[in-house]
Amino acid sequence: MAEAVRHDKTSRQLRLLSDALDSGRLGPVRRLVNTLAPAEIGNLLESLPPGKREVVWGLVDAEDDGEVLVHVGDEVRESLLAAMDTDEIIAAVEDLDIDDLADLVEDLPATVIDEVLKSMDRDNRERLEQVLSYPEDTAGRLMNPDVVTVRADVNVDVVLRFLRLRGELPEHTDHLYVVSRRHQYLGRVSLASLVTHEDSTPINRLIDDEQPAIDVDESDDEVARQFSDHDWISAPVVDDNNILLGRITIDDVVDIIREQAEHQALGAAGLDEEEDLFSPVWRAMRRRLIWLSINLGTAFLAASVVGQFEGTIDKLVALAVLMPIVAGMGGNAGTQVLALMIRGLALGQVGAANVKTLLWKEARVGLLNGLVLGALLAVIVFFWFHSAGLSAVIFIALTANLLFAALAGVMVPVTLKRFGYDPALASSIFLTTVTDVMGFFTFLGLATLLLLH
Amino acid sequence: MAEAVRHDKTSRQLRLLSDALDSGRLGPVRRLVNTLAPAEIGNLLESLPPGKREVVWGLVDAEDDGEVLVHVGDEVRESLLAAMDTDEIIAAVEDLDIDDLADLVEDLPATVIDEVLKSMDRDNRERLEQVLSYPEDTAGRLMNPDVVTVRADVNVDVVLRFLRLRGELPEHTDHLYVVSRRHQYLGRVSLASLVTHEDSTPINRLIDDEQPAIDVDESDDEVARQFSDHDWISAPVVDDNNILLGRITIDDVVDIIREQAEHQALGAAGLDEEEDLFSPVWRAMRRRLIWLSINLGTAFLAASVVGQFEGTIDKLVALAVLMPIVAGMGGNAGTQVLALMIRGLALGQVGAANVKTLLWKEARVGLLNGLVLGALLAVIVFFWFHSAGLSAVIFIALTANLLFAALAGVMVPVTLKRFGYDPALASSIFLTTVTDVMGFFTFLGLATLLLLH
Repeated sequence: MAEAVRHDKTSRQLRLLSDALDSGRLGPVRRLVNTLAPAEIGNLLESLPPGKREVVWGLVDAEDDGEVLVHVGDEVRESLLAAMDTDEIIAAVEDLDIDDLADLVEDLPATVIDEVLKSMDRDNRERLEQVLSYPEDTAGRLMNPDVVTVRADVNVDVVLRFLRLRGELPEHTDHLYVVSRRHQYLGRVSLASLVTHEDSTPINRLIDDEQPAIDVDESDDEVARQFSDHDWISAPVVDDNNILLGRITIDDVVDIIREQAEHQALGAAGLDEEEDLFSPVWRAMRRRLIWLSINLGTAFLAASVVGQFEGTIDKLVALAVLMPIVAGMGGNAGTQVLALMIRGLALGQVGAANVKTLLWKEARVGLLNGLVLGALLAVIVFFWFHSAGLSAVIFIALTANLLFAALAGVMVPVTLKRFGYDPALASSIFLTTVTDVMGFFTFLGLATLLLLH
Repeated sequence: MAEAVRHDKTSRQLRLLSDALDSGRLGPVRRLVNTLAPAEIGNLLESLPPGKREVVWGLVDAEDDGEVLVHVGDEVRESLLAAMDTDEIIAAVEDLDIDDLADLVEDLPATVIDEVLKSMDRDNRERLEQVLSYPEDTAGRLMNPDVVTVRADVNVDVVLRFLRLRGELPEHTDHLYVVSRRHQYLGRVSLASLVTHEDSTPINRLIDDEQPAIDVDESDDEVARQFSDHDWISAPVVDDNNILLGRITIDDVVDIIREQAEHQALGAAGLDEEEDLFSPVWRAMRRRLIWLSINLGTAFLAASVVGQFEGTIDKLVALAVLMPIVAGMGGNAGTQVLALMIRGLALGQVGAANVKTLLWKEARVGLLNGLVLGALLAVIVFFWFHSAGLSAVIFIALTANLLFAALAGVMVPVTLKRFGYDPALASSIFLTTVTDVMGFFTFLGLATLLLLH
């Protein structure tokens, strides 16, 4: 059971916390919460309904506040910020890394942003403004300008002396970046190579210049792809003139990968991945209503197809009993193809070069499954309704609908993508419209042609 | 569009490759393929149908073969291994890290495994056997026994001299582990602290003993959770006696996170995340047939409910036209709740402590949406069929079914989890069974009670 363990551990904490909250003993709650890492506290806050959430938030050590805010979804963050006054917010965010602060800053009230900017020294303010000048979802927003650079024309001992003077390195520093006098990126030197080479080794012998730098305009999806394809821990970010601007670290990339997955899973149900589990009823309702209304529209389309055959159903009511099976099975078969296609599109494995081959493969799988399940269904229907004609009709209709489902499962996401829409979000509505309409139409149409004399 | 970029880049490569393959010019194909990282080559191979895949696989540099095999899904790996002879396989895998080799070894033919073991030195063979002795999906299988350890009672200069003698460090070494004489784990020292402290600093002043070691029996999901909650790059693995056995690195954790996401996305459609996009038609068909057969069973359950009301439909055929709307909208509304719940369960945010609160929230959202959409539907139905009675029936039935859908959306995954099943896999079948059965039953039942005199 894939998620059992996390569930067990976190939900045990949740249980303990809930019991302690219910009993009003806040001392144990405070102790429990403050043994956790900020990300764990964030996760726990997400799992609490508004009232309890506010109580627990008040008990979190002030020094963890900033990191916790970084680790929760937009909606929960909003609810936490609402419980803080301006001074508390400033105290919470002023020690954050620039990239984390940039991530938070747009959720802060304008007056607070001004105060935060005023409380920063000029250097940091300029860095923050630089990061904020890049569009969201690009490398520029993900990077931290805090990098350690060295020159190529020195020896290991010079670098080590420099580092000892400098003191602590930024988190996740696995490489130092080698730059020219004009701060152009030349390559990187790993800490591992510094500690395994003699003091007298020149840095330019240790430079790895094979790893390309990331362009500041690169999308965060492309950044995530490069990190996981190349197993990077950190990577340099440069502008068009190859000037080193900052670095991106793997922890931010892990967050992107998780968000992409949530975006796909929740997006397919018309939800936003930032949605709070306990968002207010009115807000949750209005948001879902949009998606459900679109679905209502497509349901009417399918119903209007059935409506065309009222006369047929009136004469043979068994059709009404069986028609949802034909439509529903098409939806199920199409959903399987869709799941494979959406993964393939997300990984870049599906494109113009292989769509035809995939279509041919899926058409055959759909047809074969249609024949097998159609035959099975025909036998059952024969014993249920004692009509060979009805058996024949449902056999043909199911086979045809599973074939349509396979074709739609391949073509709907590919077409959406070609026209610039996110296939993970809209595919399933289009697919079930096709399988419902085609399912009802073939089944009732064939029945009209073959069974009514 | 979240995946557009990856798609664009990879599918451009795919296009180029496909064109070159079609024209029979293998020189350009070879050059193109061998500019890519092994993970990228793996991705490209996954996107090729069997014939082309084999041709391109033959053109990959022999030295990349092992890494490519590590980076493809089980089914594709099988197809690649089938194209290699024993010597090629041994050459491909013998330079892999122990953890990667352990990952591969069970897919190799038994004779090849023997040969591989024979070709390894005793040390490595014992390490591999140790890793293989742990169950799959545990920390023991993920770890690499290749770690660099130091003693606490030496100074920085001693460690630096030791490292210079040792030479290259294992990939992603960000910390050295401090162990006792009996190889018990005591803490870790970062390379960053080694290079920022004077030669004379004693190691025991630099030890970070706050990060707990990972237990060798820990599940890989729990390992992934700890890595992402604590932003680790690597972590030590110990046995029950705190003896250091190896280390896990973030690159393997990123793979786990990706696999978890694919498992959820494909599992919900009854598919395995290892499935090859181009798996043979017969194999793909048989695998999907199982899931579709289960769905056929539940479809019959729903159809049998409709069957109970044949007499009613016979008298009022409009019911047959409208009943799929009631059932389908319930399915859609329930799917939204389910998506939120499955994420919450995976993150440990949903448990016994808050299920009641969630149920109450979702019940209200469902009821409100039911009232709004029910009213809208009632108005449309009135103008379509000119029957106030039918309008009233569909209003009540839709409202009730959206309420049932909300309750089922919360309770189905929670109940599956409590009984030890993976909610990501089976929830949606149970949910749509509930919404179909309840949708047909309330709508047709109410119609029988209220409209037939």
